[in-house]
Amino acid sequence: MRGVVMHAPGDVRIERREDPRIVEPTDAIIRLSATCICGSDLWPYRGIEKIESPLLMGHEYVGVVEQIGDQVTTIKVGDFVVGSFVISDNTCEICRAGFQSQCEHASFVAGGIGTQAEKARIPYADGTLVATPGQPSADLIPALLAASDVLGTGWFAAVAAEAGPGKTVAVVGDGAVGLMAILAAKHRGAERIIAMSRHAGRQELARFYGATDIVTERGDAGVAKIKELTGGLGAHSVVEAVGTQESFMQAVGATRGGGHLGYVGVNHDVTIPGIQLFFAGIHTLGGPAPVRRFLPELIQLIWDRTIDPGKVFDLRLPLERAAEGYRAMDERRATKVMLTF
Amino acid sequence: MRGVVMHAPGDVRIERREDPRIVEPTDAIIRLSATCICGSDLWPYRGIEKIESPLLMGHEYVGVVEQIGDQVTTIKVGDFVVGSFVISDNTCEICRAGFQSQCEHASFVAGGIGTQAEKARIPYADGTLVATPGQPSADLIPALLAASDVLGTGWFAAVAAEAGPGKTVAVVGDGAVGLMAILAAKHRGAERIIAMSRHAGRQELARFYGATDIVTERGDAGVAKIKELTGGLGAHSVVEAVGTQESFMQAVGATRGGGHLGYVGVNHDVTIPGIQLFFAGIHTLGGPAPVRRFLPELIQLIWDRTIDPGKVFDLRLPLERAAEGYRAMDERRATKVMLTF
Repeated sequence: MRGVVMHAPGDVRIERREDPRIVEPTDAIIRLSATCICGSDLWPYRGIEKIESPLLMGHEYVGVVEQIGDQVTTIKVGDFVVGSFVISDNTCEICRAGFQSQCEHASFVAGGIGTQAEKARIPYADGTLVATPGQPSADLIPALLAASDVLGTGWFAAVAAEAGPGKTVAVVGDGAVGLMAILAAKHRGAERIIAMSRHAGRQELARFYGATDIVTERGDAGVAKIKELTGGLGAHSVVEAVGTQESFMQAVGATRGGGHLGYVGVNHDVTIPGIQLFFAGIHTLGGPAPVRRFLPELIQLIWDRTIDPGKVFDLRLPLERAAEGYRAMDERRATKVMLTF
Repeated sequence: MRGVVMHAPGDVRIERREDPRIVEPTDAIIRLSATCICGSDLWPYRGIEKIESPLLMGHEYVGVVEQIGDQVTTIKVGDFVVGSFVISDNTCEICRAGFQSQCEHASFVAGGIGTQAEKARIPYADGTLVATPGQPSADLIPALLAASDVLGTGWFAAVAAEAGPGKTVAVVGDGAVGLMAILAAKHRGAERIIAMSRHAGRQELARFYGATDIVTERGDAGVAKIKELTGGLGAHSVVEAVGTQESFMQAVGATRGGGHLGYVGVNHDVTIPGIQLFFAGIHTLGGPAPVRRFLPELIQLIWDRTIDPGKVFDLRLPLERAAEGYRAMDERRATKVMLTF
């Protein structure tokens, strides 16, 4: 089969590798219907994350189950499934508390499995995959694919930030995850949603998903603007969906005392001054999102066409042209690239 | 009147200064019945916090109201009152959300007012002070004094860490605040309370307040021990009550994925590696405790003799001998020093 491999920063290739096969009785093999490129794939692409050995790229996926191990019970051959970007057993104490991304058996699909490929082996299939109510029509596939990471991650960020009725929510980051956090905040009934964005196309999408205000300022000026819009107090709920020093501290500063910060941008080289966090007096929750917790709900909302997260994909390319997709995202010409077969 | 002034690290003096008087119509003047020395008073004492100009020391206080401003309505002359170490109006949006330490009108009693003195002017008396049900007997005074900061702060830490039934709680720090967090966790019904302490006398007090286990290891070894005691997962709830780099990261590491960290040790020179916090996947809440939120409940629990926080005071000295008290705490010969008149 064919799959995407990253050899070095900027060096993305389509290569043939062996078809995956069942290794553990809890595995499933899926044939991908679509996959995509994630903002986090740009970290190694840009040389910010070291590449020790060639990386099997891709961690977002939807597809049809081709084979299951003997112990798989909730998924059957022929099911259309959506999976989380973190493998989980969904039975341990941590999973039962809703933190499947911290599962005792957690492992990242990224790097190891690589779902920018025709097929993939998914360990702990029962705990990681969720079947859709039937075979989806083609127009639902982007939305279901989004649920695998960006929607699930944005959703978690909004939940972590306790976005809801009566709340003012500020979203730092206008990438796909930030946009999905806006969608989630809107769905959860937030009163006011402030998108922090400088990009005209993304501002438009932010408004489509529910943003009521756009703030173009960043850093301290961005914080000052959020305070100005919230009677000097700061937002009740802030989502951080970038992962840089500036964006993280902007998010801390934009959160009112006692407010909630949900952070999902992978922190690279971020160092948080303890004293600043201390005197901010805020709730924080972040990290790799427990997407599996939200998948059943998200799939249903998509199936019922209540939410339409698929619009985050503004470029579609066949798998062979993955390298073009990476370039487009790196240069911010595309928000999120879907790869088809 | 007499009051404690710190001129330089290690240089604590009793000095005469003018009696305080009503400045704003929301002020009250109280005559102190007792006051005390806080672990945080040791930061400038040890030269870790800079002393720009002489500091009026003390921020914990109980006493009798001598005078009130025209707009004070809930407190009257003659009332015995307990106050928070942060001034709050208790009416703004932030206060109503329970975060009085982040009040729009918040100011710290420490440094500015100085309650290691015979009298003190308390701004926003209605929002900061709570009257006891009557004049307390002498034996209740230490407990009521503890409510002003260490009990209120430890209580907040336990609440922030969501200590409660079925939970394993780890407490980093065996100072007065850590001990009070143990008391709070026990009162909230925590199943298991692990005190991290190397000090025999404090271990004993920790057990008195409800600790079920003692861990003497620190840093990574401390984290490993907590994991060992919790089936490899980490504690559900962790309280950080020290404020150093080691103790903070020990607390982060001891918290299970999806668990709750409440941190109340004032972070000095702590820098939190963002990536480590990210992958920990934990809830955090910390900062100066909104003691005012808890005061009515805490006063009642003390009044009813349901809790006995007063035991944290293991040395009592008259105000004149405050310098001795500072030395005893600095050298860890005393956990907490009460100053009397």
